[in-house]
Amino acid sequence: MLWFENDYSEGAHPKVLEHLVKTNLESLAPYGADVYSERARNKIRAACACEKADIFFLCGGTQTNKVLISSLLYPYEGAICADTGHINTHESGAIEASGHKVIGLAHKDGKVDAAALKSYLLTYEADATAEHMVRPGLLYLSHPTEYGTLYTKAELEALRAICLEHGLRLFVDGARLAYGLSAPNTDVSLALLASLCDAFYIGGTKVGALCGEALVFPGGAPKHYLSVIKQNGALFAKGRVVGVQFDALFTDGLYEEIGKQADALALLLKDTLMKKGYSPFLDSVTNQQFFILENETIERLCEHVRFSRWDAVDEHHTVARFVCGFCTTRADVEALCRLL
Amino acid sequence: MLWFENDYSEGAHPKVLEHLVKTNLESLAPYGADVYSERARNKIRAACACEKADIFFLCGGTQTNKVLISSLLYPYEGAICADTGHINTHESGAIEASGHKVIGLAHKDGKVDAAALKSYLLTYEADATAEHMVRPGLLYLSHPTEYGTLYTKAELEALRAICLEHGLRLFVDGARLAYGLSAPNTDVSLALLASLCDAFYIGGTKVGALCGEALVFPGGAPKHYLSVIKQNGALFAKGRVVGVQFDALFTDGLYEEIGKQADALALLLKDTLMKKGYSPFLDSVTNQQFFILENETIERLCEHVRFSRWDAVDEHHTVARFVCGFCTTRADVEALCRLL
Amino acid sequence: MLWFENDYSEGAHPKVLEHLVKTNLESLAPYGADVYSERARNKIRAACACEKADIFFLCGGTQTNKVLISSLLYPYEGAICADTGHINTHESGAIEASGHKVIGLAHKDGKVDAAALKSYLLTYEADATAEHMVRPGLLYLSHPTEYGTLYTKAELEALRAICLEHGLRLFVDGARLAYGLSAPNTDVSLALLASLCDAFYIGGTKVGALCGEALVFPGGAPKHYLSVIKQNGALFAKGRVVGVQFDALFTDGLYEEIGKQADALALLLKDTLMKKGYSPFLDSVTNQQFFILENETIERLCEHVRFSRWDAVDEHHTVARFVCGFCTTRADVEALCRLL
Amino acid sequence: MLWFENDYSEGAHPKVLEHLVKTNLESLAPYGADVYSERARNKIRAACACEKADIFFLCGGTQTNKVLISSLLYPYEGAICADTGHINTHESGAIEASGHKVIGLAHKDGKVDAAALKSYLLTYEADATAEHMVRPGLLYLSHPTEYGTLYTKAELEALRAICLEHGLRLFVDGARLAYGLSAPNTDVSLALLASLCDAFYIGGTKVGALCGEALVFPGGAPKHYLSVIKQNGALFAKGRVVGVQFDALFTDGLYEEIGKQADALALLLKDTLMKKGYSPFLDSVTNQQFFILENETIERLCEHVRFSRWDAVDEHHTVARFVCGFCTTRADVEALCRLL
Repeated sequence: MLWFENDYSEGAHPKVLEHLVKTNLESLAPYGADVYSERARNKIRAACACEKADIFFLCGGTQTNKVLISSLLYPYEGAICADTGHINTHESGAIEASGHKVIGLAHKDGKVDAAALKSYLLTYEADATAEHMVRPGLLYLSHPTEYGTLYTKAELEALRAICLEHGLRLFVDGARLAYGLSAPNTDVSLALLASLCDAFYIGGTKVGALCGEALVFPGGAPKHYLSVIKQNGALFAKGRVVGVQFDALFTDGLYEEIGKQADALALLLKDTLMKKGYSPFLDSVTNQQFFILENETIERLCEHVRFSRWDAVDEHHTVARFVCGFCTTRADVEALCRLL
Repeated sequence: MLWFENDYSEGAHPKVLEHLVKTNLESLAPYGADVYSERARNKIRAACACEKADIFFLCGGTQTNKVLISSLLYPYEGAICADTGHINTHESGAIEASGHKVIGLAHKDGKVDAAALKSYLLTYEADATAEHMVRPGLLYLSHPTEYGTLYTKAELEALRAICLEHGLRLFVDGARLAYGLSAPNTDVSLALLASLCDAFYIGGTKVGALCGEALVFPGGAPKHYLSVIKQNGALFAKGRVVGVQFDALFTDGLYEEIGKQADALALLLKDTLMKKGYSPFLDSVTNQQFFILENETIERLCEHVRFSRWDAVDEHHTVARFVCGFCTTRADVEALCRLL
Repeated sequence: MLWFENDYSEGAHPKVLEHLVKTNLESLAPYGADVYSERARNKIRAACACEKADIFFLCGGTQTNKVLISSLLYPYEGAICADTGHINTHESGAIEASGHKVIGLAHKDGKVDAAALKSYLLTYEADATAEHMVRPGLLYLSHPTEYGTLYTKAELEALRAICLEHGLRLFVDGARLAYGLSAPNTDVSLALLASLCDAFYIGGTKVGALCGEALVFPGGAPKHYLSVIKQNGALFAKGRVVGVQFDALFTDGLYEEIGKQADALALLLKDTLMKKGYSPFLDSVTNQQFFILENETIERLCEHVRFSRWDAVDEHHTVARFVCGFCTTRADVEALCRLL
Repeated sequence: MLWFENDYSEGAHPKVLEHLVKTNLESLAPYGADVYSERARNKIRAACACEKADIFFLCGGTQTNKVLISSLLYPYEGAICADTGHINTHESGAIEASGHKVIGLAHKDGKVDAAALKSYLLTYEADATAEHMVRPGLLYLSHPTEYGTLYTKAELEALRAICLEHGLRLFVDGARLAYGLSAPNTDVSLALLASLCDAFYIGGTKVGALCGEALVFPGGAPKHYLSVIKQNGALFAKGRVVGVQFDALFTDGLYEEIGKQADALALLLKDTLMKKGYSPFLDSVTNQQFFILENETIERLCEHVRFSRWDAVDEHHTVARFVCGFCTTRADVEALCRLL
C-alpha cells in the first residue's frame, strides 16, 4: 500500500527521534523551562531574525489556533478567514467554543483576497448597527493554505496594511510552513512573517515531529501566557518533548530540508499527472496536490493507495488529495504515477 | 417627525400598561412563581392548544435565543439558520459566545430553503471528516423573518421532517410573531408551531410589551431550566413584570389584534408605494416593509421621518425599512405616503 | 398575610410607575439612546460627583455581576469575594459560566476582611506555582452585604489600597445600595464609591423599580461596551424602560428616601425583637434583619407571615430573615412584633 | 545535583522509548485509529476487566480533567472535590474556564471525606434556594491524592454509593495511578475503579511516558467523543504517539512495575527520615513524600537537591516534597538521606 494520505502518517524524522533518544534520561526542568526548549527558542528567533520574539511550544494545530485566537480577541470580536480556512471547517468548532465567531470570506485559490477583505471591513464600519454585529478583530491566514497554495510577499504586505488600518491583528497558521518556505519561487520567509504578524506558528506535527507546534509572538506575548496555555489544558509537563524536537528541526536546516524534499516529490507528481492529462483542482505548489479524478479511477486506486477524497466536483468526478511527507520517496511517487 | 423606525419606539400598549398599574402594589412571589405569570402561562398553553407546554418568561430576543440555543445543543453542535438570520447578523456574536457555531445557509426571501438545508445535511453526513466538523444540531427559523416574509405551513412541515430525519431540533424565533399570526392568508398558527417545534418564543418587546418574551417548550423544558436561566443572568426577580404583561397580551385576543392592526397599515403603505411606482425589496406581508429608494429620496425623507437604511443596492439606491407598531396610525401612513 | 419575604415582592414605587405611565407613548430612540436614559445618567453622575462616569442600564443583579466581572477580568483571572458573597452562593454559577473562578474568603460579619485579603494575596504571590493557579484579578464587595452589614469608609479605603497594590480591580455590588446609603451613621456615599471603585452598580430592582440596575464606571467603561452587553443578551431594546425608572429614582432624592424608610422600619423591628429577648444573627443596620428563632416559632409564624429561613443554627434553631421594602408600613412591623 | 523535584523530570522509560523507536517509520492511520492505539486500548480493557470500556488517549492531566468534567456536566452543574484537589488549586482555573464551579470540601488527609460530602449534599438539597445555587454534578477524586495518600476500597465504595444516591457522576484522576496500584496493602485495583467510576484516567506523563493519559469510560463514552476532544484542541494527529507508549506501559506489567519501584524508594526515604526524627506532613504511602523541615535545612538542601517547597507550616518550618520516579535509584535516596 502506497501512503499519500497525509503528512502525519509516520512518527518522527530520524534526526528528530535521535535527539529525543539522546537526551531522554537527562533530568530537566518542566513546563518548557528546560535547556533544549530554550535552545530551540533561540534558534527559531535567529531563523526569524527576531531576537525579542516570545515563543511557546504547544501540542497541535487546533489547540494552537484556539489558544492564540482566543487570547488575542476581545470577547465581542471575531476572526476573519477564507471560508476554506481550517478554523472554519475542520476544527469541530474549537474557535466558537472559545466564544468567537469565525467569519469566512469567499476564498480565492484557498486564500483571503485583499479586495474582499477590504470590502467586508468597509461595509461593516459603515453599518449603523455595527455595535450589534461581531467586530472583526483578527485575520487568520494559512500558509500554505489548506489547498497547498501560497501567499506572495506582496499579498501578505497588502493584507497586513489592511489589518493595521482597520485594527485587526494578523495571525498565520503555519501547520505546514516548511512546505511553504521551501517552495520554488516563494518570496515568503520566516523573517517576513515575523515582520508582518502579531503571531504565527511553525508547525511540527506535519513536518517530522511526533507532535508540537511553535507559537511565535514577534512583538512579545500577552501577559501571563503560561497561565493562558495551562488554563487551556495545553501546557506540557515535559515541555522538553517538544523543545528537543524543535531543537533538532532547527539545526542544520532540517526544517526547510524536510519541506524541500516533500515539495519536490509533490511537484514531480503534479507534473507527471498533468502530462498524463489529469486536471489539478487548484495550482498547488507545495506538498499537497489536488487532482480531479473520475470516481471509477478513485475506486480502483483505493486498492493500492491511501489518499483522501476531497469535494465532489460533479456526479462522476471527485477531487483527490495526495500528500508527500518526510517518508515519501521518489519510488513512491513513480509507483503512484504508474497507477494513474 | 413620523416614526417608522421600528416597533419598539414606544412603551407598552395601553392595555398592557393598565394591567401593570392595576396589579402594581400586590405582594407576589418572585422568580415567575406569581399568580399572573401562571395565568399567562395557562392562556398561552390554551392559545397553543398544548396543555403540557413548559413556558418561561425572559427579557429580550437575543437573550432568549442565546439561552435556548445553548441549552438545546451539545457543545460540539451548531445552529443552522438563514444567512440573514438574526443570530447570524445582529446579536454581537451571542450564540458563538455561548460556544456554538452559527451556520448560515444562503437565504431565499429571508427564509431557510428546505432543499438547501437537505443538501447541506447530506453533504455533511457523507463527509469522511464529519467528526472534525461542527455537527448540525438545531435549525433556527425566524417567523416572520428579518425581511417580513412568512413560512407556510407546508414549508414548516417540510423543514420539520428534515429535522427529524437528521436529528436536528427545531426552534422558531417569534420576536414579531403577532405580525405573522395576523397576516392575511397565513396558515401558520400558534398550535401549528407547538406541534412542530422543540421550542419557540412569542415576542413581547416588539408587540406592545415594555419588555419580555415567552419561551415555549411544547414537549417540556430541559431539566432545571430555572437554573439555566439564572446562570445566564436572565431570571427576573420580579417575574411578575413580564407575567402581568403577557397576561394582558393573551386576554381578549390583544396579541393578535396588535399584529393585525400593524400589518394592515404596513400593507396599506406597501400598496400605496407600489402604485406610486416604488419597488419593494422583498415581498413582505407583515409589519416591516422594505423599499428600494434613491439615495436622494432617502436624504430628503430623513428630515421628516425616522426609518432605517438597510443594505445598499447600488451606488444610487438603498433599501429603506419602514415598520408599523401598535402606535402607528392610518394618518401616519398617509403622511408618509404623501412624502414619497 | 404579612410580607417580609424580600424587597422585590411588589411592582414599582408609585412615583416610578407614574413616570413610566406619563412617558409611555412618546416615541424614543432604542437601546438606551433615549432622552430619559441620558437624563438619568446625568442625575447619577451628579449624585456620584463624577461627571465623566460611563453608565449602562441592565436588567438584574446576576446579569450585571456577570457582564461586569467577565468584562474586567483576563481569562486566567478570578474574582475574590466573601464566601457569603452573592456571586459565590446564589447566582447558579453565572460567574464560573463566564469562565472565571470565584475565590471565597472566610467572611467577617458578611464582609471581606482586609487582613484576610492581604494574607491571601501575599501567599499567592509567594507561591512558586502561581502561574498554575488562578490569578486574583478583582475584588467583589456587596454593600450592604448579603447580611445587611455595611463597610465603613475606612474599610473601603483599606481594601482599595490593597487592590491597587496587588493589581486588583474593585467592584461593588449595590443591589440594595439605597439601604446602605441611608443607614444611620454610615460614612459611605455614592461619591465615595465613585472615587474608590473601578465599577459599581446602583440597584433598582430591590429599591422600587420594576427591574433595572445602573452600572457605573467612574473612570470610563471598557471599549465597545454596548457590544459587550448585547453579546451577553443584556441589552434592552426599549432601554427607556430602565432609564425612565432611574430618572424617577434620582429625582428629588427618591432613591435614598426609599432606603431611609425601609431602614427605619427594619431597625424598629430589630429594636423591638431585641427588647423581647430575641438574638440577632449578625448586627445588620439596614433593611434586612436576621434573627435566631426556635423552629417551633418559625412554624407558627409561617401561618401569618411570609419571610425566609436562612441557615440552620442547630437542631432546634434557625436563622429567619425579615426584609422591609418600599411597601412595608409601620403597622406591618408592629403586627409582626406582636406575633413574636 | 539529586533530582527529587517531580516524576516528570526525565523523558520516557527506556522500554517505552524503545517501542516508539521501533514503530517510528510505520505508516499508520491518524487520530487514534492506528493498530497500536487499538492494541493499547485492548490491554487496558483487559487490565480493567472491562471489555466494553471506551478509551481515549489525551495529552496531559489538566487537559484530561477539563475535557472529561465539562463533557459529563450540565452547564448548571459543578464538580465537588477536596479543597486540595488539583482542579481546585493547580490548573489555572481550567475547569471554571469550561464554565463550571469547582466546589472544594475541606480535605481529610488529602481525601474527600464521605461524611463531609453527605452533609454538603443534604444541606444543598434542603435549601429552598437550591435552584439559585450550583448543582453538584460530579465528584472528582485523585488517587493517589495530591498528598500521596490513598483511598481504600471501602472508602471508594462509600463515596460511590453517595454519588448514586444523589445523582453525581464519579471521576477519578489517576495522574499517578501506578503509584497507587502498586502501593503496599492497597485494595484498589484497575478493575475496582472500572466497576465504580463513570470515568477515570490512567496517567502516563508521570509514569514513564513522554506524554499522554488514557481516559477510560467503563460504561461507554458520551456520544461523538472524538468531536468533543477535537473541539477542546486535545486530539493528537499522530494518535500513535500516545497509543504506542501505552501499548508498552501495559505490556508485561511495566505500568505497575514503574509504580512499585518508585513507591519502594519513597518508602525507604520515609522510613529513614522518620528514624532520623523528621516529621512527615501526612502519611503518604506512595512516591511523593512530604516532610516538615526547618527553613535552614531547606536552604542548605537546595544546594544539592532539586525538590519542591510546599506550604509554610510556621515561621520557621516548611513542608518539603520529595518525589521518586522511574529514574530514581536507591543510591539517590541514600545520598539524600545522608544530607538530612
